Amino acid sequence: MMLANKYMWAFGVFAVSNLALMMFAAVITTYMAPAAAGSGIPEVKAYLNGIDAPEIFSFRTLVVKIVGCIAAVSSSLHVGKAGPMLHTTACIASLLAHTGSHKYGLTWRWLRYFKNDRDRRDLVTCGAGAGIAAAFRAPIGGVLFVLESLSSRWRSALLWRAFFTTAVVAVVLRAFIDFCRSGKCGLFGKGGLIMFDVTADNVSYRLSDIPPVIILGVIGGILGSFYNFLLDKVLRIYTIIHEKNRAFKLLLAICGSIFTSCCLFGLPWLASCRPCPGGISEACPSIGRSGNFKKFQCAPDHYNDLASLFFNTNDDTVRNLYSAGTENAFNKYSILLFFVTSYFLGILSYGLVAPSGLFMPVILTGATYGRLIGMLMGSKSTLDHGLFAVLGSASLLSGSMRMTVSVCVILLELTNNLLLLPLVMLVVLISKTVADCFNLGIYEMLLRLKGFPFLQGHAEPYMRQLTVSDVVTGPLQVLNCVEKVGNIVHILETTGHNGFPVIGEPPFSQIQVLYGLILRSHLLVLLRKKYFLSSRFSARANVFDQFSADDFAKCGSDRHDGIGDIVLTAEEMEMFIDLHPFTNTSPYTVVETMSLAKAHMLFREVSLRHLLVIPKFPSSAPVVGILTRHDFMPQHVTNLHPFWMRGRNKLFQFRNSTVINMFRGLWL
Amino acid sequence: MMLANKYMWAFGVFAVSNLALMMFAAVITTYMAPAAAGSGIPEVKAYLNGIDAPEIFSFRTLVVKIVGCIAAVSSSLHVGKAGPMLHTTACIASLLAHTGSHKYGLTWRWLRYFKNDRDRRDLVTCGAGAGIAAAFRAPIGGVLFVLESLSSRWRSALLWRAFFTTAVVAVVLRAFIDFCRSGKCGLFGKGGLIMFDVTADNVSYRLSDIPPVIILGVIGGILGSFYNFLLDKVLRIYTIIHEKNRAFKLLLAICGSIFTSCCLFGLPWLASCRPCPGGISEACPSIGRSGNFKKFQCAPDHYNDLASLFFNTNDDTVRNLYSAGTENAFNKYSILLFFVTSYFLGILSYGLVAPSGLFMPVILTGATYGRLIGMLMGSKSTLDHGLFAVLGSASLLSGSMRMTVSVCVILLELTNNLLLLPLVMLVVLISKTVADCFNLGIYEMLLRLKGFPFLQGHAEPYMRQLTVSDVVTGPLQVLNCVEKVGNIVHILETTGHNGFPVIGEPPFSQIQVLYGLILRSHLLVLLRKKYFLSSRFSARANVFDQFSADDFAKCGSDRHDGIGDIVLTAEEMEMFIDLHPFTNTSPYTVVETMSLAKAHMLFREVSLRHLLVIPKFPSSAPVVGILTRHDFMPQHVTNLHPFWMRGRNKLFQFRNSTVINMFRGLWL
Repeated sequence: MMLANKYMWAFGVFAVSNLALMMFAAVITTYMAPAAAGSGIPEVKAYLNGIDAPEIFSFRTLVVKIVGCIAAVSSSLHVGKAGPMLHTTACIASLLAHTGSHKYGLTWRWLRYFKNDRDRRDLVTCGAGAGIAAAFRAPIGGVLFVLESLSSRWRSALLWRAFFTTAVVAVVLRAFIDFCRSGKCGLFGKGGLIMFDVTADNVSYRLSDIPPVIILGVIGGILGSFYNFLLDKVLRIYTIIHEKNRAFKLLLAICGSIFTSCCLFGLPWLASCRPCPGGISEACPSIGRSGNFKKFQCAPDHYNDLASLFFNTNDDTVRNLYSAGTENAFNKYSILLFFVTSYFLGILSYGLVAPSGLFMPVILTGATYGRLIGMLMGSKSTLDHGLFAVLGSASLLSGSMRMTVSVCVILLELTNNLLLLPLVMLVVLISKTVADCFNLGIYEMLLRLKGFPFLQGHAEPYMRQLTVSDVVTGPLQVLNCVEKVGNIVHILETTGHNGFPVIGEPPFSQIQVLYGLILRSHLLVLLRKKYFLSSRFSARANVFDQFSADDFAKCGSDRHDGIGDIVLTAEEMEMFIDLHPFTNTSPYTVVETMSLAKAHMLFREVSLRHLLVIPKFPSSAPVVGILTRHDFMPQHVTNLHPFWMRGRNKLFQFRNSTVINMFRGLWL
Repeated sequence: MMLANKYMWAFGVFAVSNLALMMFAAVITTYMAPAAAGSGIPEVKAYLNGIDAPEIFSFRTLVVKIVGCIAAVSSSLHVGKAGPMLHTTACIASLLAHTGSHKYGLTWRWLRYFKNDRDRRDLVTCGAGAGIAAAFRAPIGGVLFVLESLSSRWRSALLWRAFFTTAVVAVVLRAFIDFCRSGKCGLFGKGGLIMFDVTADNVSYRLSDIPPVIILGVIGGILGSFYNFLLDKVLRIYTIIHEKNRAFKLLLAICGSIFTSCCLFGLPWLASCRPCPGGISEACPSIGRSGNFKKFQCAPDHYNDLASLFFNTNDDTVRNLYSAGTENAFNKYSILLFFVTSYFLGILSYGLVAPSGLFMPVILTGATYGRLIGMLMGSKSTLDHGLFAVLGSASLLSGSMRMTVSVCVILLELTNNLLLLPLVMLVVLISKTVADCFNLGIYEMLLRLKGFPFLQGHAEPYMRQLTVSDVVTGPLQVLNCVEKVGNIVHILETTGHNGFPVIGEPPFSQIQVLYGLILRSHLLVLLRKKYFLSSRFSARANVFDQFSADDFAKCGSDRHDGIGDIVLTAEEMEMFIDLHPFTNTSPYTVVETMSLAKAHMLFREVSLRHLLVIPKFPSSAPVVGILTRHDFMPQHVTNLHPFWMRGRNKLFQFRNSTVINMFRGLWL
């Protein structure tokens, strides 16, 4: 249609097909699996920290994520596919760990060994690594990304397992690419195992090239943190709109899609046509296929450079920007316009209700930014503009996502240019240090926005001044070793706690002592199985006859652990349960005078869910309180002790001084 | 001399200069710093696990390590330099953390912030990474090696710091290489930033190339574990000889050096001369310089392929073996002979009393092994023999050192061939899995041999059946809150413990309670400063007037913490010390009924040195015992409970079945 000068028709078809795809993605996300919206990386990160957000690993989310991501990326929306791919593979791993989906009858008995928190978490970690490895065809980068940005705990055995997983990914990918070499799988095999090969580029740089690279790093850091800042603001506005009504979500998606279509189609008109360069093997202008030189509205033997950037797959655009010897292919203003559009479209598109990733927009925007810097440097630098584009991607990635080693390795595996490594490392370090002065990394920001109680690796400085007894709150719910059924039901109904201290009392022990800790889920199993005693001292049945280990195994995401569906008669309510055999008799404990920071370390390093606080000196109550993840949240602590806030603000001002921050970025 | 056919003279000069260099290295190691012998990697690994071996980070060890390593490598001994380089850089890091060496007056005041266990450990970790990064010019490989093979604990902040360190290494290296490009630094700049560049090699492999690669991996795993087995045996014999007398150490070094000289000079005579290939740019035979085609005893236009392998620097030999298109440069029997020699020389050379690394011999032996497999495959595989050599190195490295990701990344950074990655990953995984069936990795083996109480990341299975009270031994030494000086001195003199529980007793508390834990080093500070009270209830001086935080800071390696050098009068011995202000009032505690495996996890994850055991039910003693690292050693536990050994042996038989082991390698 463009060739036949039917421009309005062309725009109509383009916009309508985009809108249809986008609506499809938005509708299935909104009505079938709202948890599938966004990239999913924050949710996986939260899960690996110990937070079970509802539905994030369900079978329905998996299906919507896959289908929705394909639709959203196809709809020309400025979003990536790496994040959703990571979520998809993590989802598959989690479903495997739950011995498949019970709801859909897909279960495997041998997988039951994974049916516990630790092994499931390990499996999800490996799955997430596989996702990144597949998205970037970067097996080592995948492992490192998970290690650096996602995982909260790490064991050396896990490194080896994650590595095994990504090795399988690499071998399978390689086999598929071989199979698809002759072009029978569409765009898939393109680029081989290395997506943006720039080996051919001659990397020779001198000392005089270092200052431009440093400038690139500094500005990249600022742009990256500004990206996070804007994204935060936009997402807050979107959240307000989304909370009003489901229809508003769809309306926002429609607006986003139409706006994107207008930008993509409208902006290339601003660029002037350029004559085709001589002596190239490619057809120019390229018509009817995914090529580098788009004709758009130009005369024969001319091309529109902005259209070449806009009307390509993201992968192809990045490949064009990275390639060497193309200094004159693009106009300075075209690149600037594309950079600005890409920067803001990326921010506006992410929050729309569809599966969408952040990686590709950031890589693309960064590549444009790098090219721009290269063009502005002009003859002051001998570095190729393609290499500037690679450095720009590195700088924006580390400025917004604050990754270091993983960015370097992923870019190394994407571009296959080892000689560039020292420069990439330099840029990454500068960008991260600069960006850390301003705000948090993008994933931490998204975690806060979603309100997950994410437990940081280190305690806040003011926590050293507080003791655990300062943050213990609320009336403590305790159970006796032999407890009345009615009491247990009442406590389960009125509180949401997941663990309860069990007290040994006369006649089972001489004085009141802390016997142990029992979990809510185990109490529910006991109630459901009606393991009751008629009186406090009647004979106990053999536990092993009535229960097997499977009964207490962690249940899957399609859980039925409500207290509501257990029906008990009034008679049963008067009976007793002997909790002795089901109590964890050696829970981790701390004395009430321990500093909060120290307890935080124990809680975090040993991955606890409950930590019992015992009195320093023997008193009437053998247990003072129970600490959970929420008690360590800075917000909770500062709410309880508002006077600390002042000191904290002072500290914050201190921390904002740049020099201190650079030091802090390195050593804290 | 060889050109003039004076073969005996040539051998004489060769052997004597080797011997002189070797003797120099051996003498300074034996008499100045015995801790500098060997690679130093096990010692650094033990240090990062929390074991302070004496003298390993002293200034003297540093000097001897550097000088001795240069001498040992120059003396043609079949040892590497990577291990000593790692130890050197770790040593420098540790000295910095101790604010320099007090003995030699090199101190910096601003470095005192590192004067604590955690920051010192972090700094040493970064230092170790820098060593490997410099040795292989592999910045990312260095970080990963430390992460995978050395470090016992890992925090995400550490990843970023280690990465910063190796980035600096990369930039400095790059600058030096640029500076040395014109050959003014001897062999240093050779090879550029990529030591063994094989980018030019065409990596195209098909499905039919996979079986040879799998065979290579399996045999590599067997060879690697056999290497460890032999090294263990040889080192045990060496240890017996070394313990007899210092002179025996030197004698062994002399024998080793002469034997090596004989092998290197004698074996090339067994190879037949080969005609020079036509159409190469290099001079053939190469005379008087470090080239590929050694003339040795051959006629003009002929070369001795075995001499080319033996009479080169290790780096050059590896480069030759890795290079493509050299299928016919080497004879099959020459390669076999070199492989066997290299394999056994590597094993025999490591234990000699000189700084020596294991990496380079293993890489070299592996490269020869890979070539050999390539030659044996003949036309069955289309893979280049140079690539076979790379795969051989990978397989032997992972078979003997059991590294996975780090081998892949180091080889990637050494060879700059990303397309080879899937094959390398495959080989590494197969070799490690096969080798894990037979024995431990080389560093674990060396740690056991040296008798370090290394705390593993996971508890042994039988520890789940034991409680902590089962392993608590010995009479417990406790102190009162206000203790007589004489008692403290007596306890410090008669025991070697480093921490003592402090008991609060009437009249300071109502009944006997656990007040906290005090460290031996803090008690020594109190004794040295004579912070005494004339009677149990006399007024206390203000603590802050008498002590500053610096007094209690961790002292350096040139420590003076003996009780012997504190002189106290009989009168002072009758005085009292108030321990209240110096006691850690919230030590980590566990109840006596906790399973040993659970306590192990706490001890390991929180990096404790002392763990107090408190009674389950209130009793007369408020503390049952104290657990240290030694109480978790499998040997200690099985000595106390020999009946568990039987169960363990049964388990061991079970574990030895191969299928189980492959599963275990992956998921345990």
